[in-house]
Amino acid sequence: MFNVKKIIIISSVLISAAANAAQEPKYVFYMIGDGMSSAQRQITEYYAQEQKHDPNYHLAINSMPVSGIITTQSASSLVTDSAAAGTALATGMKTNNGVIAMTPDGKKLSTLLEGAQKQGKATGLITTTRLTHATPATFAAKNKNRNAENEIAVDYVNSGVDFFAGGGFRHFITGQGSKRKDDRNLVDEFKHKGYRTFIGKDSSQYFLNYQPQSGDHIFAAFTKSHLPYSIDRKVTPSLAQITKKGIDLLSKDKDGFFLMVEGGRIDHAAHANDVAGVIGDTLAFDKAVKTALKFYQQHPKETLIVVVGDHETGGMGLGMGKQYFMNLDRIVNFKESVEDKLQKTYNGDRAAFYKHIGNKFGLTDLTAKEKAKIEAAMDFVDAGKKDKTKVWGGYDPVAMTVAHITSRRAGVYWTSYAHTAVQLPVSSIGVDSASFGGFGDNTDVAKKLAKAMDVKIGL
Amino acid sequence: MFNVKKIIIISSVLISAAANAAQEPKYVFYMIGDGMSSAQRQITEYYAQEQKHDPNYHLAINSMPVSGIITTQSASSLVTDSAAAGTALATGMKTNNGVIAMTPDGKKLSTLLEGAQKQGKATGLITTTRLTHATPATFAAKNKNRNAENEIAVDYVNSGVDFFAGGGFRHFITGQGSKRKDDRNLVDEFKHKGYRTFIGKDSSQYFLNYQPQSGDHIFAAFTKSHLPYSIDRKVTPSLAQITKKGIDLLSKDKDGFFLMVEGGRIDHAAHANDVAGVIGDTLAFDKAVKTALKFYQQHPKETLIVVVGDHETGGMGLGMGKQYFMNLDRIVNFKESVEDKLQKTYNGDRAAFYKHIGNKFGLTDLTAKEKAKIEAAMDFVDAGKKDKTKVWGGYDPVAMTVAHITSRRAGVYWTSYAHTAVQLPVSSIGVDSASFGGFGDNTDVAKKLAKAMDVKIGL
Repeated sequence: MFNVKKIIIISSVLISAAANAAQEPKYVFYMIGDGMSSAQRQITEYYAQEQKHDPNYHLAINSMPVSGIITTQSASSLVTDSAAAGTALATGMKTNNGVIAMTPDGKKLSTLLEGAQKQGKATGLITTTRLTHATPATFAAKNKNRNAENEIAVDYVNSGVDFFAGGGFRHFITGQGSKRKDDRNLVDEFKHKGYRTFIGKDSSQYFLNYQPQSGDHIFAAFTKSHLPYSIDRKVTPSLAQITKKGIDLLSKDKDGFFLMVEGGRIDHAAHANDVAGVIGDTLAFDKAVKTALKFYQQHPKETLIVVVGDHETGGMGLGMGKQYFMNLDRIVNFKESVEDKLQKTYNGDRAAFYKHIGNKFGLTDLTAKEKAKIEAAMDFVDAGKKDKTKVWGGYDPVAMTVAHITSRRAGVYWTSYAHTAVQLPVSSIGVDSASFGGFGDNTDVAKKLAKAMDVKIGL
Repeated sequence: MFNVKKIIIISSVLISAAANAAQEPKYVFYMIGDGMSSAQRQITEYYAQEQKHDPNYHLAINSMPVSGIITTQSASSLVTDSAAAGTALATGMKTNNGVIAMTPDGKKLSTLLEGAQKQGKATGLITTTRLTHATPATFAAKNKNRNAENEIAVDYVNSGVDFFAGGGFRHFITGQGSKRKDDRNLVDEFKHKGYRTFIGKDSSQYFLNYQPQSGDHIFAAFTKSHLPYSIDRKVTPSLAQITKKGIDLLSKDKDGFFLMVEGGRIDHAAHANDVAGVIGDTLAFDKAVKTALKFYQQHPKETLIVVVGDHETGGMGLGMGKQYFMNLDRIVNFKESVEDKLQKTYNGDRAAFYKHIGNKFGLTDLTAKEKAKIEAAMDFVDAGKKDKTKVWGGYDPVAMTVAHITSRRAGVYWTSYAHTAVQLPVSSIGVDSASFGGFGDNTDVAKKLAKAMDVKIGL
């Protein structure tokens, strides 16, 4: 008869032997949805199902074989910001909100990206925000203050990262539109170090046509500040296109690569309580993940993909009031973001504004109550009142009123204009992915990656 | 040299052989936190950390080796109710909101509990709600309408379930306090079938002293309707105590057991936007899970524990407004529930009410704005206005105003008085637990359990 116990013991021993003999992942994707938690993932999946008329459609991020769940509190608050969260994800260490890859008392922390560099791997940082924004910064800069973006930009010039692509050239240029206080032209400095640079949206097509050659270094910043929301995007490359270009370059390195890809504006849309903005940028992030998955399918035994969020934003509730339904039909045809576009619309011309929200948000059938709310916000703005923070989170009162009307109509509402402390899903596939299952902390994700990659991080 | 591929293949073959030779779990715990999703789990963990002054403390439900993530939409709505969700978890099939273990067109569905009975296993249903409430009903009754609790009670009498314990004797008794329209005394019918019965809160101590004997059958309903919220509980047994008693009885069966344990009032507290109520009942549920874990530790190779929620309730956001913090200190000393207690307090005597919320909720330092909100709610009530639904979700306006003030002070807010559609965490440990990792649907949890137990469910 079969001796089950014995078989299990024998096979465990053999598996250990196999695991020890196995290689670290040659190719590592670390994909971070900023502000993306369960609600942002699920609303986007339901929206995609509705749009595709396929109730069985699943996002790539919601289909991976391994799922984990992590906590996110920082050293200074149960509710983390992106600097402390990024530091945890990049270095395995907790720090205070606002701090970039340093301990609360100012010691510099080693990151996964730096560890990969020491192994000879090619490295890349991709984001839809300014490149100097908190999440990417935590991988290749050190600063006590996330707002010191000019200093973070200087760190990047000295970082040795092979592929930078995102927004935010204002911290790298001189002259008009620059945010720098010194006269350093960091774009030129990148060039002197041998980087090809792509600056401004006019460079988008050059970037898309560019064929990476072994040994190339890239610095691409297509916009002065953040890249446009996916829902507003016209000429700049998509996150998936940028990710594909990064892969094409970095995969030429014989030692493999470490590539961080951030869907950075899911967070911004959620701060602005913009349902369609969240969905658009989560879909764009998911397409970038699909691009990584295609690479994985070609190199399944050498690739590890880890997908995480850094915190939830907005306290996004998929249901509101006494309702037991959501109506995502109401937002399928939305045409612009709240923060970047709608916010800039109201200029005192009420008729023009109503026409605008009819065109862009399908709001041609406002109820008396909805209209009264918008009129009240217009009155507030027309009166020149300035204190928008308390009620409207610092956003334009008229735009925010519309955002809340559209949220209500969809049955999707918000508790916050800021971050929340809910646990986050993790998804993983590939070499050592099983270790990312179960419950843990954001620092554990970094530690598990460090172990899988065999690099040293933290202090 | 080691041939890694060959070793992996050999060990896979051996593992398959081991798996095939391995037994189904003899003991199955299916533990359901009604209305419990990521937010309810995390706020409770942070609260416990604060109370224990231990930032490394973790709930049992947040510490299991396997974590999965599931979707919850029903056949009729993206936002499920507990009947459709329970049906999915009990039978692996989607149905319309409101339906108990039947298809939308009325076909009866086989449940995991019934499958376990066919295998000769002992079975149990434990809940903190009325026993005839939706979640337990989906395991041992069939009805087109979850509200037909008198009919569900009759199904129970004929169900053969060995251990019932919870609340809601009003659907089983005759005479005063009964909700039955017929003259059937189902408690007597249970007795005639050989059940020991424990009816009313006075039976609590008898229940706790009772020493289960092999072959016993138990029907225990300690309260007319739901069991008290954990925060209000005095004499009735805790969910953990009931679970322990269930284990003591059911584990005497040589074929093992299937035991469903519901933390049913996490949902009710969240409907009532009651932060402390949610935390109290989630902690009580976690203690019941710990009781199951103790049994698992004694029988690790024969036990499977699966912990799920059925949906999120309240759109609970762990953060609000522009804040980047939560302040759980503010709720540590709360002494009563919003729904069962505070709601019944305001009777026109304003001074008495303020004294009450000072004593029970520590609200001795109301701001002028907070007091104005309470006064406005009192004015509304005193004027005899009846339409509470629109603003206060059908709850007492004064109590709900206090619930929202305490929520704001804690930095924890709500989008809904109802359910939401966010994905849910799953936790598992024991035999075949690995299969519960990854992304899936609530129906998949039931299907995986059916496969692990080797029973047929659904149509």
